Amino acid sequence: MNTSAGSGPHAGARTAVERAMEAALALSEGVRGTTSPNPPVGAVILDADGRRVGEGATQPPPGPHAEVLALREAGDRARGGTAVVTLEPCSHHGRTPPCTRALIEAGVAAVRFAVSDPHPEASGGAGVLRAAGVDVEGGLLAEQVAAGPLRAWLHRERTGRPHVTWKYATSLDGRVAAADGTSRWISGPVSRAEVHTLRSRMDAVVVGTGTVLADDPWLTVRAKDGTLADRQPLRVVVGTRGIPRDARVLDSAAETVVFATHDPGEVLAGLAERGVVDVLLEGGPTVAGAFVAGGMVDRILAYVAPALLGAGPVALRDAGVSTITEAHRWRVEEATMSGEDVRISAVPLTGEGGD
Amino acid sequence: MNTSAGSGPHAGARTAVERAMEAALALSEGVRGTTSPNPPVGAVILDADGRRVGEGATQPPPGPHAEVLALREAGDRARGGTAVVTLEPCSHHGRTPPCTRALIEAGVAAVRFAVSDPHPEASGGAGVLRAAGVDVEGGLLAEQVAAGPLRAWLHRERTGRPHVTWKYATSLDGRVAAADGTSRWISGPVSRAEVHTLRSRMDAVVVGTGTVLADDPWLTVRAKDGTLADRQPLRVVVGTRGIPRDARVLDSAAETVVFATHDPGEVLAGLAERGVVDVLLEGGPTVAGAFVAGGMVDRILAYVAPALLGAGPVALRDAGVSTITEAHRWRVEEATMSGEDVRISAVPLTGEGGD
Repeated sequence: MNTSAGSGPHAGARTAVERAMEAALALSEGVRGTTSPNPPVGAVILDADGRRVGEGATQPPPGPHAEVLALREAGDRARGGTAVVTLEPCSHHGRTPPCTRALIEAGVAAVRFAVSDPHPEASGGAGVLRAAGVDVEGGLLAEQVAAGPLRAWLHRERTGRPHVTWKYATSLDGRVAAADGTSRWISGPVSRAEVHTLRSRMDAVVVGTGTVLADDPWLTVRAKDGTLADRQPLRVVVGTRGIPRDARVLDSAAETVVFATHDPGEVLAGLAERGVVDVLLEGGPTVAGAFVAGGMVDRILAYVAPALLGAGPVALRDAGVSTITEAHRWRVEEATMSGEDVRISAVPLTGEGGD
Repeated sequence: MNTSAGSGPHAGARTAVERAMEAALALSEGVRGTTSPNPPVGAVILDADGRRVGEGATQPPPGPHAEVLALREAGDRARGGTAVVTLEPCSHHGRTPPCTRALIEAGVAAVRFAVSDPHPEASGGAGVLRAAGVDVEGGLLAEQVAAGPLRAWLHRERTGRPHVTWKYATSLDGRVAAADGTSRWISGPVSRAEVHTLRSRMDAVVVGTGTVLADDPWLTVRAKDGTLADRQPLRVVVGTRGIPRDARVLDSAAETVVFATHDPGEVLAGLAERGVVDVLLEGGPTVAGAFVAGGMVDRILAYVAPALLGAGPVALRDAGVSTITEAHRWRVEEATMSGEDVRISAVPLTGEGGD
């Protein structure tokens, strides 16, 4: 260890802690989509000399939290060391015992976390640790973690609603299909693979009955060899039109729930009850319009393909706008190439959607 | 001068020549939109020691070409020096005497140019110069010059048609106006200023009769203080619907021509006859559809604003596509932020439009 002055036992080992937090962030990315209703958290344990001796990420419920797994791997080497966690350790007894207790019992001297826990029951973890003599500091890489793996969970904590990402693929002239309804493929292979990966990390995928009737999609996640992935997001069909009993979305490949309503608030409340945190809204235009009009889209992910169609359906209908001054205004987070397409990521202009 | 071996008197002064070509490129950028039917060319004269002693850019016809202006400034200092020009010097006698003769008479020892002249009458300039003992080399910065200031002119030389840039501003969901037809402003101030600058460099601006009836635009270029710019692009109205006599586009602020046709080939032939090289197609959807269907759009410039409308007209209608496999496919040249909007620049997938 170096000898620079600092307030805690590892104040001089700043770089090792930062690197550990980056590793914890990566660990949490790896379990996105598998932890709901719990947050995807990553943890790394450094021993008293700053060496990495344990790591973990939240397991699917009712499995252990990240800190517990990491402490298990570290064993006695955690004593006098530092726990580096993407979220403030919980201090409440839920499905698992509180992580604060595990950290104190393991004898860690310091805890560094990224994002504070906004959960009314769980918060106060930092206080509990400090009362036990642990050196605690939050905020490290907080922005990346909050905008990344914890984004949906934090949104759910703040609003009580699942986080909704509306994804669509459109031609340069704003069409999501040609005049005859064909849409395979508007976007290129890179974008399609990216969307598939995105879907695999979601708790639920939402489409309207119109999309089921028009495209008869499976909405499942498959491995590269075409076999069904072990974990499938919940398939959600929204709308009042009936769908055929043999619709692919009703097959046994994954669970499916049908909401016979156009009210997005009702849909999201129902999904929240089921522990859904992260939702991918895949269309069609009527369902998207209801969600946008209700202020219940939290992120737009638009894949704009360099194609021109000149006819065919568009991505959004009936969003409650009749004149330009009423337009829903968003902010572009990022516009980048995705293969031959342009991917535009946007968020509502004022804070998170509907807040 | 340095002493490195080379084939010409300035072969060792490579960097000075490159810098001079960058200056010539900038000079030619400065006269874009003022030189048609002639190409916007820039020229820099280096004396025998590699010092910059003259510069010029093509003047509006029947004014002098770039080389002649630059030689005039250089005077006797051009003798034994190098002429650096963005386009191969012309060898034919048009409105002005051939530039090759001016260069030979001035006694330049070397000529460096970017792009070869594809014009049947003008080409051969390099040969004429070489025959007179001048050291000639082409290709320096050729790509930048060909994709930049000479793009439209080279297209016209190759195809006989003016170069057409289709520009439109759309919401994220592909609407160019709200349900009630209002569209001010979908895009932000940065994009609007950019489009205004773009228009000021064009030979002609094309809209459909529908746009004239709906929006009654002026289509003029104005200075920051609101006064009309000295030079105005030709205003072109396309379509078979009648427009009112008091339409703004028919005022005395600039010249206007009306083509009572929907055939883009007819329109472009008429414009070519008038010496138009660079065209900005500003809409609406029917005219754009006719140009796209005819393969007569050479570049798309789409300003995608982070707004959602859910209703209202789209950018393109009737482009001759009925199913997805018939989609017009393009290639994104660039996708960048333009203020709060995303600017997408695209070109036809195979070479230049309609080639």
